[in-house]
Amino acid sequence: MKYRFSKSLEGFSSSAVREILKLTQGSSIISFAGGLPAEEYFPLDAVSDAFKRVVEGGKSALQYGLTEGYKPLRESLCKRMAAKNMIVTPDEMLLTTGSQQAIDLLTRVYIDEGDVILVERPTYLAAIQVFQAKGAKIYSVDSDSDGMILDDLAAKIAKHNPKMVYVIPTFSNPAGRAWSLERRQGLLDICRGADVLILEDDPYGEIQFDESESYPTIFSLGGKAEGGNVVYTSTFSKTVAPAFRTGWVMGDESIIRQVARFKQSADLHSSTIDQQTLYHLLEHFDLDAHISLIREQYLDRMKFMSGLLAELNWPGLKYEEPKGGMFIWVELPEQINAAELLKIAVKEGVAFVPGATFYAENPQYNTMRLNYTHTDRETTVLGMQKLAKAMEAYLQNA
Amino acid sequence: MKYRFSKSLEGFSSSAVREILKLTQGSSIISFAGGLPAEEYFPLDAVSDAFKRVVEGGKSALQYGLTEGYKPLRESLCKRMAAKNMIVTPDEMLLTTGSQQAIDLLTRVYIDEGDVILVERPTYLAAIQVFQAKGAKIYSVDSDSDGMILDDLAAKIAKHNPKMVYVIPTFSNPAGRAWSLERRQGLLDICRGADVLILEDDPYGEIQFDESESYPTIFSLGGKAEGGNVVYTSTFSKTVAPAFRTGWVMGDESIIRQVARFKQSADLHSSTIDQQTLYHLLEHFDLDAHISLIREQYLDRMKFMSGLLAELNWPGLKYEEPKGGMFIWVELPEQINAAELLKIAVKEGVAFVPGATFYAENPQYNTMRLNYTHTDRETTVLGMQKLAKAMEAYLQNA
Repeated sequence: MKYRFSKSLEGFSSSAVREILKLTQGSSIISFAGGLPAEEYFPLDAVSDAFKRVVEGGKSALQYGLTEGYKPLRESLCKRMAAKNMIVTPDEMLLTTGSQQAIDLLTRVYIDEGDVILVERPTYLAAIQVFQAKGAKIYSVDSDSDGMILDDLAAKIAKHNPKMVYVIPTFSNPAGRAWSLERRQGLLDICRGADVLILEDDPYGEIQFDESESYPTIFSLGGKAEGGNVVYTSTFSKTVAPAFRTGWVMGDESIIRQVARFKQSADLHSSTIDQQTLYHLLEHFDLDAHISLIREQYLDRMKFMSGLLAELNWPGLKYEEPKGGMFIWVELPEQINAAELLKIAVKEGVAFVPGATFYAENPQYNTMRLNYTHTDRETTVLGMQKLAKAMEAYLQNA
Repeated sequence: MKYRFSKSLEGFSSSAVREILKLTQGSSIISFAGGLPAEEYFPLDAVSDAFKRVVEGGKSALQYGLTEGYKPLRESLCKRMAAKNMIVTPDEMLLTTGSQQAIDLLTRVYIDEGDVILVERPTYLAAIQVFQAKGAKIYSVDSDSDGMILDDLAAKIAKHNPKMVYVIPTFSNPAGRAWSLERRQGLLDICRGADVLILEDDPYGEIQFDESESYPTIFSLGGKAEGGNVVYTSTFSKTVAPAFRTGWVMGDESIIRQVARFKQSADLHSSTIDQQTLYHLLEHFDLDAHISLIREQYLDRMKFMSGLLAELNWPGLKYEEPKGGMFIWVELPEQINAAELLKIAVKEGVAFVPGATFYAENPQYNTMRLNYTHTDRETTVLGMQKLAKAMEAYLQNA
């Protein structure tokens, strides 16, 4: 038959990251591409113990659950959030299939075709895709290492009347930025004055290298959620493990209620086996000690990769060491097209993500995102050697 | 701030089933409302064993997976499907968060605002909600106990030019119908001639009481998926347990590829812990023997509730014993409004779903859906007594 697909498919490209991930899965290609945590630190024994406790609870653990998610886990999460000055009740929180689903559900609840969303420059690829699929107009706000430039934000709000601003203020994907307090407060103040909703995406906030520094979430600056401008989402994918696909979203109860209505028709609810396992894990495992371990190891890996990058001595190479998260953002000399470089790199046996995919508009083609969390030292050395070779070949052919 | 929600929220009511489920959760109300499987038959030990095997596989089990889902599980499922004459490759299948997500994703891939979808009369509430949220126009095709009436289907296809027909041909929700072979073949032929996609939702097909009867899926009648008119979805929720939230969707590779793109931005992928657990369960547990057990028990429960219904002696009461699935569909005398009856019933301590919620248009208010799978004999007797009392009170106040 002749299929008549939805027009939502137009201009909705598959994620380059996921396609590369597919390409490299099961192959010998060294990948700096995905945002994969280091497998060797997954707390598998603790997960196994937690699952045993779920089973001990009896067969009702396998029944349908609430759309909002397993309530004891929401209660535990409320306590964890309160320790970060984010005060919410379980009714102001909903459990999702990763924070990706929170982005998708909030967009379905809040955005219509033609509505404007402002994003960072650059920003998370899969958020752009969600917004595009909904037919939103996306404009990027000029940004530097301290976050969005507030004058440009104010100007673009005045010009475009956006419904929402999407930000990853703490160790952003892909740029690894940590917004300054002034920019965080400024974003909140400007959006409050203009009735613009802020979606604060915080998957990496816990992966903070210097514990003496403080990066209050925008949600915490906004105070109590009721009537608030900020919807906050985070996930267990980076602190425990991705396979659980368990994230959460917090905000005013009236918003969470609408998110729940959409989630009900999207999938009824996420896996409650996973939610119950995570609940028992939080009760009986020292997650904060585990996070400290991850921080140390990832800092070590970041420093190691950064050192190798410096040794490359590519003329015109620019990057800053991130203060947390999982990525180093690299600016190459202007004449380099990173997507072309990737083609050669994959032949050499190494992958990364070309930076251009992370721009909502006017991409910078001479950028790349490197993940440092997933490869051990030996593999990283090898990968960087292959990358150096790829660049040599690229420059010779140029 | 003043929220500016999407217009998708208009006319998009929360599921009555889920709201009642919420009301009855943790309370002493006897519920014939939800579509809950019997907890006492959940194969918890087998699930526990399967999870142990996942853990034995090592930490990589907890890493990110493919959007399409855990490939060994897709391969196992392809074998199960082949035994039912549904021949697909793993690339023509995608794992979802329950079959609910398959309905939602296919709708996002295929339907635009204003497009027409035809459904059975009555049909599954949460499918109506998905279609409404997308702004589709939904018309119901006259249906009897053999399925959609083909003349009315042909007339409505000619009149409305629908993109899709949504059906639950085997032990439908809510009506408990099993379509005749003639109607199945007729639906396929008519839709083929008119380039209309069929979404065949089959969550209950395995719960078949008389094993000597045969209900070939419409997908199997359509032959090989390539270029085919039928997209098929099913789930482990009724055969293993709902908490896994694991379903699958099958169809032409070009459709599955688009579904994958939308799933990628919807949630990256569903829980691979659950998918891996189900894979090991299929390998080491006799699921077919387990399904036989469930069939016997549910047949017994259906017969028992049917007997109690007959004893009620309500004048004008009509129902047919279903040949499988989880529901008895009840027609009450014309002057009875089941939604009003429910209010009294909940006060008496029993819940059901008023049938009107299952109609896309022109609801029949004198109908109700009773679930017989979740309550044991003692509870069913009690619940039916309370229902009888509620009806008495209703008739006295009328």
